[in-house]
Amino acid sequence: MPSDALPDDPLPSWHDGRTKRAILDFIARVTKQGGPDYAPPAERIAVFDNDGTLWAEKPVYFQAQFALDEIARKAKENPALARQEPYRSVLAKDLKALTADNHKGLLQTLAVTHANMTTEEFASRVQDWLKTARHPVTKRPYTEMVYQPQLELLALLGKTGFRTFIVSGGGVEFMRVFADKVYGVPPERVVGSSDVVTFRMGKDGKPELYKTAKVEFVDDGPGKPVGINRFIGRRPILAFGNSDGDLQMLQYVTGGAGPRLGLLVHHTDGAREWAYDRKSPVGKLDKALDEAGARGWTVVDMKQDWKEVFPPAP
Amino acid sequence: MPSDALPDDPLPSWHDGRTKRAILDFIARVTKQGGPDYAPPAERIAVFDNDGTLWAEKPVYFQAQFALDEIARKAKENPALARQEPYRSVLAKDLKALTADNHKGLLQTLAVTHANMTTEEFASRVQDWLKTARHPVTKRPYTEMVYQPQLELLALLGKTGFRTFIVSGGGVEFMRVFADKVYGVPPERVVGSSDVVTFRMGKDGKPELYKTAKVEFVDDGPGKPVGINRFIGRRPILAFGNSDGDLQMLQYVTGGAGPRLGLLVHHTDGAREWAYDRKSPVGKLDKALDEAGARGWTVVDMKQDWKEVFPPAP
Repeated sequence: MPSDALPDDPLPSWHDGRTKRAILDFIARVTKQGGPDYAPPAERIAVFDNDGTLWAEKPVYFQAQFALDEIARKAKENPALARQEPYRSVLAKDLKALTADNHKGLLQTLAVTHANMTTEEFASRVQDWLKTARHPVTKRPYTEMVYQPQLELLALLGKTGFRTFIVSGGGVEFMRVFADKVYGVPPERVVGSSDVVTFRMGKDGKPELYKTAKVEFVDDGPGKPVGINRFIGRRPILAFGNSDGDLQMLQYVTGGAGPRLGLLVHHTDGAREWAYDRKSPVGKLDKALDEAGARGWTVVDMKQDWKEVFPPAP
Repeated sequence: MPSDALPDDPLPSWHDGRTKRAILDFIARVTKQGGPDYAPPAERIAVFDNDGTLWAEKPVYFQAQFALDEIARKAKENPALARQEPYRSVLAKDLKALTADNHKGLLQTLAVTHANMTTEEFASRVQDWLKTARHPVTKRPYTEMVYQPQLELLALLGKTGFRTFIVSGGGVEFMRVFADKVYGVPPERVVGSSDVVTFRMGKDGKPELYKTAKVEFVDDGPGKPVGINRFIGRRPILAFGNSDGDLQMLQYVTGGAGPRLGLLVHHTDGAREWAYDRKSPVGKLDKALDEAGARGWTVVDMKQDWKEVFPPAP
């Protein structure tokens, strides 16, 4: 804990200031019994985007990196694959080729690495990857590329009667593997994108769920409020995002009656993390940044507001 | 509470016997710290079908009755409708016409009464209906057509660290209106069938969610384990159903490792409720009844096992 943090400070990695006050003030108001802004525990639902909001998303989305690493693993097991697409481009690290034509190569890569297996097989592959993979820049496990200030906020919300949900464009089956352990968010509170899953009897006569390559739901942009309605069934009172993919989620959450808090992480720290916004291909923050002022959303300036970015190495 | 029930009996409306013992024994085993069948609270997930399992489903599914009543209400507001289908057949109570051709008329009726409005408008219509509608046979509000023994079981599971979910072929937006108040199951723990919902900006510039008539997901039969995976993300340890629409859900839940409990309500009480199984168009129980023995599922004989069926009138 930073030396200048009070021992009773619930958000020790947040600098004291406007942003931290806005968060603590909101929590105080909605939990104050008999206060004008009191929200009963049932209504205390907070939704968080994942990529760029709870963990980093550079140089590429971590789930995309998982897919790239899986391609390498499979090609090693079966060298003949190396001559086929998308394996060839992935192994050549030809991100340009993979992202060309509306990310066709990346979509092929996702299909090859995420589909045509049971949900249990997929989960165990993600688990194996998380154990061994390291971030290309920091060399840390991806599960340590999470934001310490957000871990503190998730914990504080849990302690004050909130139910925290992840609402992310990432794959729901991917995030559920680590969300519980890393964020304390159990599988039933993870909302994400999904492929069509089918029920069938396995060879051993045991029922199983099989992941197909057909996209079922994209939990991004206007899909986020739709996903919130589908999975949660009521309007949260707090939403935290970082990109234009979170725009409609923040519009929906802060558009309700009563006390609402909309928050955006602005990646302004090129030294400790990455600095990017309006022109970034990953985590583009443009329209939502423009709307923040008009709609009264709180913009978190990573460089100014966060004392720590990542947790200390264990 | 029935006079012969012990004051400390957590299931006073269940007759003592094999069925009640199977339930209490399972709960005791999975909650016994250090016992061989102990399940940590996170794993204590119980899923319940709704129609015919938590509340009655005769003479027709209550959601279908809501649709029929809505048709009458709309035709009263706009008499010209009465000459069009499905209004004509509904007003003529011509169930035969409505169920002909793969329930075409009923599907039209569902579209007319469930779609082309915001999710909030739909919820308020269901709320209004529940306030005034009465069951055609018992003349009781539909929210009193719930099974008292099941209310006691839901409460007991909640007290013993379980999270109870509804997993029903019924519409998720319909059930969420009353599940919290009637069953103590909050919206985020209701899994059901759904139409495509779209996000849009309303005329007042406020974001809204709009219900379309396009079916998105049918949470019945093989759709139930798929819905469980999608919404809950892990395999429950207890499943309670009453019809062949629950077959795959029970196969999936009881097909997992460790302690599992599969239960089926068998509607055997023509005096206090309805007696039906293999040949009933609503709530058909045939294949699942055949599999119950082989898979060790507990069949609840409503007539023999339940002291009370419905709660006493308030």
